[in-house]
Amino acid sequence: MLTFDQLQQRFTEAFNLDEIPTNPVRLYDPIRYSLSQGGKRMRPLLVLMSCDLFSGDIDDAMNCAIAVEIFHNFTLLHDDIMDQSPIRRGIDTVYKKWNTSIAILSGDTMFALAYDYITRSRPAMLPLILPLFTQTAREVCEGQQLDMDYEEIDTVSIADYIEMIRLKTAVLPAACLKLGALFAGASHKDAELIYSFGQHIGLAFQLKDDLLDIYGDQVIFGKRTGNDILTNKKTWLYLKALEKADPDQKKQLLHYYSGKSFDAMEKIAKVTAIYNQLQINEAADALILEYYDKAMHDLDAINVPDASKEIVRDFALLLKARNL
Amino acid sequence: MLTFDQLQQRFTEAFNLDEIPTNPVRLYDPIRYSLSQGGKRMRPLLVLMSCDLFSGDIDDAMNCAIAVEIFHNFTLLHDDIMDQSPIRRGIDTVYKKWNTSIAILSGDTMFALAYDYITRSRPAMLPLILPLFTQTAREVCEGQQLDMDYEEIDTVSIADYIEMIRLKTAVLPAACLKLGALFAGASHKDAELIYSFGQHIGLAFQLKDDLLDIYGDQVIFGKRTGNDILTNKKTWLYLKALEKADPDQKKQLLHYYSGKSFDAMEKIAKVTAIYNQLQINEAADALILEYYDKAMHDLDAINVPDASKEIVRDFALLLKARNL
Repeated sequence: MLTFDQLQQRFTEAFNLDEIPTNPVRLYDPIRYSLSQGGKRMRPLLVLMSCDLFSGDIDDAMNCAIAVEIFHNFTLLHDDIMDQSPIRRGIDTVYKKWNTSIAILSGDTMFALAYDYITRSRPAMLPLILPLFTQTAREVCEGQQLDMDYEEIDTVSIADYIEMIRLKTAVLPAACLKLGALFAGASHKDAELIYSFGQHIGLAFQLKDDLLDIYGDQVIFGKRTGNDILTNKKTWLYLKALEKADPDQKKQLLHYYSGKSFDAMEKIAKVTAIYNQLQINEAADALILEYYDKAMHDLDAINVPDASKEIVRDFALLLKARNL
Repeated sequence: MLTFDQLQQRFTEAFNLDEIPTNPVRLYDPIRYSLSQGGKRMRPLLVLMSCDLFSGDIDDAMNCAIAVEIFHNFTLLHDDIMDQSPIRRGIDTVYKKWNTSIAILSGDTMFALAYDYITRSRPAMLPLILPLFTQTAREVCEGQQLDMDYEEIDTVSIADYIEMIRLKTAVLPAACLKLGALFAGASHKDAELIYSFGQHIGLAFQLKDDLLDIYGDQVIFGKRTGNDILTNKKTWLYLKALEKADPDQKKQLLHYYSGKSFDAMEKIAKVTAIYNQLQINEAADALILEYYDKAMHDLDAINVPDASKEIVRDFALLLKARNL
């Protein structure tokens, strides 16, 4: 089995931005800009890791790994327009650096480029991987729409929220793992199990993200702590707090999320205080643990020698232990 | 051979909007809205017509025909955001009726849906059709970018303009025809010829569009005559006029295209007067005819019985004779 570092190196070698066209400059420069910012390259590594887990040839899956990385960055590029986010990974977002039209069109072209790479896979693979890739792309869009919808409506159930983050953030890592498995010729059952593993890990990851936004160390985490509270984001923490709140706490929560303007520090402090009273932190931790446990059960059930699973297990533990 | 009406009927029967998902409502309603507006369904008909020309089974190519129709409408949807066009086919555009974020995301989802349909084609077809479809999608984006670029720069050569409209409007009909040919198992040479035919027809069509914008009958043509002049669009007519103009005429053209504000009727009248003096109308007609002739040569060279080409020839003649 290849280590995480080895997989990373193989991907970095294969992901050659020089292959991306240059003209028109104002179409392809933003694409190169967006793709060269790095990030963790998590999703392509999941493709390769899973392919390796099922004893496949990772070179076989490489174009698909490149495709998911381009696709993911395309979604970020368009999300940044919709969310009006001026900064990503410490630098200007594309719509900010160029303009909205260019950001829309570069994003569209990246989506096409993702298909370009995935189509370079072995012909026999295409009927297997394309429906999964396309369905996942649609689901990610659906998740983003639900996320925008939930900003505007008052009542979001916890189940609705979980379904939203499943679509918006968990199906893509799950699909990456399944794609890798398909390239390795894994059984239908194993492919579904690794998909389920990825989905559970993805849900745990997003919930941890919500938690770190409030309880994370600002210095380590990098983002401004409490940003979700400031922007009235109806995260799991908020929705769970509403559920557990007594009438007075509920009134306060709704008051601070009413859209009126408050002192930022005061708002964060007050909402966090209610979360603390209701032990939302612990409740979130318990749910995150539950998803990790489910993921581990999925992994256990996969029909490959236990030793081969070590790197996947390590990867999950790494995510579980993260505090940034 | 099937007539144009028969092809149209077969497509209309197959293109079932009920198959498009419903949730999230604010994602899929705009898609259904965009696709139900009709339009001429020209591009899917080209797929089917070409498949039929080469004696293929048009049902085989039907999902691909649906895919190109969805793709085309996706590009219109995103173009309308970029061009800030509030009206299309007489009704509000998606970004106007909903908002920009929803228009971006619905468009992205339509692009995925297009791939969804194309992927439903016979598995053996996928390695043939996907690279062509994806390359065409990229080229259409490139054309749109060039179109936006040319709004901002002063000097655009006629060759640059032709290349822009080739990418923005001619490669898609060309690809549609080639896709149909591929489904019918046409020879490589014939597939290239029908592509070339489509590209020549597409160029002629767009140049005719430029011409009708100024010389078209406003009642028949539907659009406000002279719109390209009002918006300082550097069309072939304008660029050719600049090329042929004497110093005084050139000064006037640049003056009216300088971005200063003018009375609309005066501006259209003055620029049109220069076009008339320079016989730009006739020059454009000659070029359009040249492209039609090239298209007819492509068609003549295709290795199918001449009688089978009748409907394709009729179609080209119909476009050639159009005055709307």
